[in-house]
Amino acid sequence: METFVLVHGAWHDGSAWDPTVRHLESRGQRAFAPTIAGHGKSAPRNVNHAQCTESIVRSIVDRSLRDVVLVGHSFGGTVICKVAEEIPERIKRLVFLNAFVLKDGNSLMDESPPHYVELFDRLAKESADHTVMIPFPIWRESFVNDADIETAKWTYAQLSPEPYQPCTDKLDLKKFYLLQTPKSFINCTEDIALPPGEWGWHPRMSSRLGLHRLVQMPGSHEVIYTNPGGLAEKIWEAGRD
Amino acid sequence: METFVLVHGAWHDGSAWDPTVRHLESRGQRAFAPTIAGHGKSAPRNVNHAQCTESIVRSIVDRSLRDVVLVGHSFGGTVICKVAEEIPERIKRLVFLNAFVLKDGNSLMDESPPHYVELFDRLAKESADHTVMIPFPIWRESFVNDADIETAKWTYAQLSPEPYQPCTDKLDLKKFYLLQTPKSFINCTEDIALPPGEWGWHPRMSSRLGLHRLVQMPGSHEVIYTNPGGLAEKIWEAGRD
Amino acid sequence: METFVLVHGAWHDGSAWDPTVRHLESRGQRAFAPTIAGHGKSAPRNVNHAQCTESIVRSIVDRSLRDVVLVGHSFGGTVICKVAEEIPERIKRLVFLNAFVLKDGNSLMDESPPHYVELFDRLAKESADHTVMIPFPIWRESFVNDADIETAKWTYAQLSPEPYQPCTDKLDLKKFYLLQTPKSFINCTEDIALPPGEWGWHPRMSSRLGLHRLVQMPGSHEVIYTNPGGLAEKIWEAGRD
Repeated sequence: METFVLVHGAWHDGSAWDPTVRHLESRGQRAFAPTIAGHGKSAPRNVNHAQCTESIVRSIVDRSLRDVVLVGHSFGGTVICKVAEEIPERIKRLVFLNAFVLKDGNSLMDESPPHYVELFDRLAKESADHTVMIPFPIWRESFVNDADIETAKWTYAQLSPEPYQPCTDKLDLKKFYLLQTPKSFINCTEDIALPPGEWGWHPRMSSRLGLHRLVQMPGSHEVIYTNPGGLAEKIWEAGRD
Repeated sequence: METFVLVHGAWHDGSAWDPTVRHLESRGQRAFAPTIAGHGKSAPRNVNHAQCTESIVRSIVDRSLRDVVLVGHSFGGTVICKVAEEIPERIKRLVFLNAFVLKDGNSLMDESPPHYVELFDRLAKESADHTVMIPFPIWRESFVNDADIETAKWTYAQLSPEPYQPCTDKLDLKKFYLLQTPKSFINCTEDIALPPGEWGWHPRMSSRLGLHRLVQMPGSHEVIYTNPGGLAEKIWEAGRD
Repeated sequence: METFVLVHGAWHDGSAWDPTVRHLESRGQRAFAPTIAGHGKSAPRNVNHAQCTESIVRSIVDRSLRDVVLVGHSFGGTVICKVAEEIPERIKRLVFLNAFVLKDGNSLMDESPPHYVELFDRLAKESADHTVMIPFPIWRESFVNDADIETAKWTYAQLSPEPYQPCTDKLDLKKFYLLQTPKSFINCTEDIALPPGEWGWHPRMSSRLGLHRLVQMPGSHEVIYTNPGGLAEKIWEAGRD
């Protein structure tokens, strides 16, 4: 039995993993999906990246979890890198699900394509609480491109505005890049949340991991909603010894 | 119910879509596959790109079609861009099936790899009527690489020489690049009609669409012949709201 | 009925193809999988690339095989290029299974990424007999990333040290690049034995073949172990007329 801790991406909270957790549990695995600080519909938004990290560290330590397969999706990739720096002795393997693997010293926005930077900067400025909500047309076409319109709308209703500070905090990742923790990367082959090519997830992000295991599956950036059963299987393949 | 208008590529005529049309109809959709001017076994070849466009515009207007999901395959991509410029009010979404999305001011040949340009220029010169017929070995290996030899030969027999003028006409696409029409791109993952990489379909052509929906399927450039049922399903996924 | 000759890669011997041979035979095909000189657990390691080539030429000529579909995997790609130069009249088609297609004048190591060059140079120096054994962590994560740990260990136990000389011999491939022999390339979509991108198999290696047929399948660099049935099917698709 493996112990999975699943760290969600921007606009999500831990409940986005519920179907994936059930699929992992039905395979006899343990899986936890904590909500990152500053996320979830009712949480206050004034958090920085260090607080995001600390909230996940706490949820692992408070449950006394060890030999954790720590999975990060999208923005969650930036969090699991820092969590691994803080409690490497509890982490068995890191799994990046089309997730950011930032270069040392960069923020998430430093590695996002210019059209997102321009849009998100503006949206954050226009917001009352320095947050960004992804516009529905982008969500529908670039994030859940494999969903029908009903699923696209339902999933959009699950989202809540993303605190912008953690996306612009520059991260010291020197320790992460020295860790010997085994690593895997799951690439969803129809994921265009980052545009394929120069700004894409794979191999841009995956190649930074050094020795790692690649696992691929069909689907969009949000297989967490559109194919949680298939995702659970690939997380299991990515996480096994 | 959606209304699909399917625009074929070079060497083809509308009949190449017949099985796809039947699959779409069996899903309860409407689908039309007009033949572009200058195409089809018996048509005179002295056409330019504007006449190609006009023939598709006419077939849409004459049928009084509205809310059209307009699909272009290969060369057909250059046609649907210009059709959308002329009658944007009738077009609900543009779907590019491994199709050319030219930069403003370019011709199709301007964006084709040098070995094709050299070959096609020569073949057009050698022809009696400024047309180009694709040599069978290229068709078999690069266009229907997923077919058996009988299918390769049968499909080749359906082709007719391509008028070269529409492939060398430079297209003003300024209006196209301002259109807000939703767009999708279908990429067939074994399509090597354009060589993968620097000269490939995806993401070279798809990335020019700006916000768009990506759909992928296995198969060669000619899934229109080798997998029309799968193609109909992907056209439907690409075209839905 | 086709006649397949299957040429293994580094660390392997001909027996790695046994399940694939059985699958091809059960389809009514003939298939042979000779062991390259200097390979196999008990063979002396003091061979150069010319001797590797000669051993495969001999196994084809001694069996009086003609119309051979000659398949090379990985390092085996360098061998089948040279075999085709020597006995082109016996070769019907060349099939590269995520195999090296070297530029004229290069060695395999000349086209390998720096981290492999550094590691393999060191391992060869440290060995008693100028051989290189791939470390298990690289094998498990980058070569059999689609296997479970038991399969990973079992397959590793089948390997034996690779003679380094054939990997550093620079090959004259001028004749190969003039051959009109039909060619196919099989790409396994999760193969990260060469890292995707700048140093990857596809399209880096495949594009050098000029006109060729692309076939793809899911799986790692070692589908020879993890999916021999699927591999046999793709070899058949790649090899047919």
